[in-house]
Amino acid sequence: MSTGADSALVVQKYGGSSVSTAEKIRSIARKICDRARTGDRLVVTVSAMGDSTDDLIRLANAATGPDISPPLREMDTLLSTGELVSSTLMAMAIHSLQQDAVSLSGQQAGIRTNAIHGSARIASIDTARINRELDAGRIVIVAGFQGLDDTGDVTTLGRGASDTTAVALAAALSAERCEIYTDVDGIYTTDPRIVPGARKLSEIGYEEMLEMASLGAKMNPRSIELAAVYEVPVLVASTFDDVPGTLIHGGEPTMELRRAVTGIAIDKNVAKITVRGVEDRPGVAGGILQPLADDGISVDVIVQNTSDDGTTDFTFTVGEADAQRALSAVERQGNVQFREVAQGGELAKVSIVGTGMQNGPGYASTMFTALAGAGVNIDMITTSEIRITCIVQRSDVSAAANALHDAFELDRTE
Amino acid sequence: MSTGADSALVVQKYGGSSVSTAEKIRSIARKICDRARTGDRLVVTVSAMGDSTDDLIRLANAATGPDISPPLREMDTLLSTGELVSSTLMAMAIHSLQQDAVSLSGQQAGIRTNAIHGSARIASIDTARINRELDAGRIVIVAGFQGLDDTGDVTTLGRGASDTTAVALAAALSAERCEIYTDVDGIYTTDPRIVPGARKLSEIGYEEMLEMASLGAKMNPRSIELAAVYEVPVLVASTFDDVPGTLIHGGEPTMELRRAVTGIAIDKNVAKITVRGVEDRPGVAGGILQPLADDGISVDVIVQNTSDDGTTDFTFTVGEADAQRALSAVERQGNVQFREVAQGGELAKVSIVGTGMQNGPGYASTMFTALAGAGVNIDMITTSEIRITCIVQRSDVSAAANALHDAFELDRTE
Repeated sequence: MSTGADSALVVQKYGGSSVSTAEKIRSIARKICDRARTGDRLVVTVSAMGDSTDDLIRLANAATGPDISPPLREMDTLLSTGELVSSTLMAMAIHSLQQDAVSLSGQQAGIRTNAIHGSARIASIDTARINRELDAGRIVIVAGFQGLDDTGDVTTLGRGASDTTAVALAAALSAERCEIYTDVDGIYTTDPRIVPGARKLSEIGYEEMLEMASLGAKMNPRSIELAAVYEVPVLVASTFDDVPGTLIHGGEPTMELRRAVTGIAIDKNVAKITVRGVEDRPGVAGGILQPLADDGISVDVIVQNTSDDGTTDFTFTVGEADAQRALSAVERQGNVQFREVAQGGELAKVSIVGTGMQNGPGYASTMFTALAGAGVNIDMITTSEIRITCIVQRSDVSAAANALHDAFELDRTE
Repeated sequence: MSTGADSALVVQKYGGSSVSTAEKIRSIARKICDRARTGDRLVVTVSAMGDSTDDLIRLANAATGPDISPPLREMDTLLSTGELVSSTLMAMAIHSLQQDAVSLSGQQAGIRTNAIHGSARIASIDTARINRELDAGRIVIVAGFQGLDDTGDVTTLGRGASDTTAVALAAALSAERCEIYTDVDGIYTTDPRIVPGARKLSEIGYEEMLEMASLGAKMNPRSIELAAVYEVPVLVASTFDDVPGTLIHGGEPTMELRRAVTGIAIDKNVAKITVRGVEDRPGVAGGILQPLADDGISVDVIVQNTSDDGTTDFTFTVGEADAQRALSAVERQGNVQFREVAQGGELAKVSIVGTGMQNGPGYASTMFTALAGAGVNIDMITTSEIRITCIVQRSDVSAAANALHDAFELDRTE
């Protein structure tokens, strides 16, 4: 039975902690059935149950033995089973509540990707099968995180990429919106564990959300990019608490969106690599950083200062976990001469984010003044159009975030 | 690198208890690599790890709730993940030993089935991908137990059907032979736990093996049928003990195969349903048994005796586990009038099996004499061309089996 053209098509996504037990799956199945009875047509993406992906990785490492990485092609098929399990269980649970449902693997859902195993990109989605199942009156459960490449092999989209599956499906199906249900109830002005006055936002723009992606909602940045490109409104809300969430959208800013600074992003795991006495010639930055790119290490803040002796100091930050690998990549490279390389750690990144900032001056000076007032020393500074980032000592994070939250009056609702 | 036309193509299968841990998978991977180094080209089918299929069934029941059966279509995709996990882990383990290997799902291996979820039959195997991988010098690991139907949905072939996958692959690939590695080291003349003198057979014919399928090797009967039809020699051997196994084949009988009685099959879980005072007219047997067939209950021995009063007594046996359902199916049916129905349990089935029996008389009388000599009362008798079966009291099984093993001198090698 088709429910007709006037019913809304909605894509939902439930994260791993929301489906970690059979009981939770039954509880979500009840929510889904209630929603279906309102007339909405539903496509639901699920992540793997709880820690099951980590369990599979442990099994792979045990099968492979120490010091050998399992082939990524095999890893992808292995890890894809986690979402097959949760999606079939969800379909079964809905079925037991007298609603018709069908689970589809990434392949069956028509999700085609490139062949980069472990971090594949979606190339296209053929929605024929999904539409057929929807037209037959079924709730469609799609295994997140996975697709199929041109050779018929299973690929995965990277950790946390069930968000990407959901947004991509919403775009391909021209869904009214995408709803991401998770264990937090929305996007906050900053991390509530660090700033007690942190306030939940009722809405946020795509670009701001991209900058804030490291905040509590832990949304996959690529899914936000995709939502922005295809203008898919994304609701982030709590799986189990029935409270309003945060709507991520690109429409006309309402009162709240017009606020200049929307939130404060915090990253507590920053390490700094400083290369001293670098020969000063064109191509130096690329020469130093290429081997890091080859090793898949993301570089964040980059600063270069010329010294008096004709050489230059080149500093950049990486995630704490990548620091050792970054250091040895620099030492290993033969492109660029330098005197010494050193690692500084125990750093953090505090950023103010807001689209309103691009149209007004004074945000940087307010930020620096607030940090100075809190006794926080700034190590490095970097900016984008809608963000100003300071690298500070990790021990200063709480003082910095609270001072900024106060200075920009983020606890105040309009 | 193709190893050329003179190298043997062998299909191996490892059961669930053989791959129940990552350590066991590594140990089998070593065996497989050793074998590959002899020049044989290998296609390896694996079952799901240990009890993982049962774990998935428990999850399904928890997600569905009590008294509701999960939809078989969803169940098939869920259960198929067990073999995807073990096959990818096996490919990873082989890879870590510096041999090239690739895992294929049932679908990727080209296994197409009908759409009977839960007990699908293989319709065809397109071996193009397997041959391509073999030609590239890879060991091919195929997830057992699964295939794909014409609508693109995953199907499973029934419990224990990884044997069927292995034999079907061997037939489709014209493999030299199929090797089933398991936790027993071959096919015995009878159950060694009951008859201490039971002897391992070095070979056995397909038909005899079909009759003996309930013995220690626990081979899937359908896989034996398939092996017989396509004349695939099947070796049953121990996974971990390097001792000769049993070769199941249909070629010229050697010394051992020419022996008249090959073995004694034992089934200790037999129940008897007796329907008394049945109207004596054509169609009675079908009328009584149809509702059992509808419920999927297998009926084994059937005996019908006419009484003096113009009615008849109709007796049949079923597996102990099906007895209650069989009883109520008979009571429920309205096709056939009868006076009363009763269930007798605690029975067992003891059979002598051997292709030589069809060409010589006297085997039945030897059997009955031996049983009488052991003080075993015979309840029912049924025969096929290569088998004579007696239903006896379960408490008499050991005495019966030992007496028959002696009478037919099965402990004696040629």
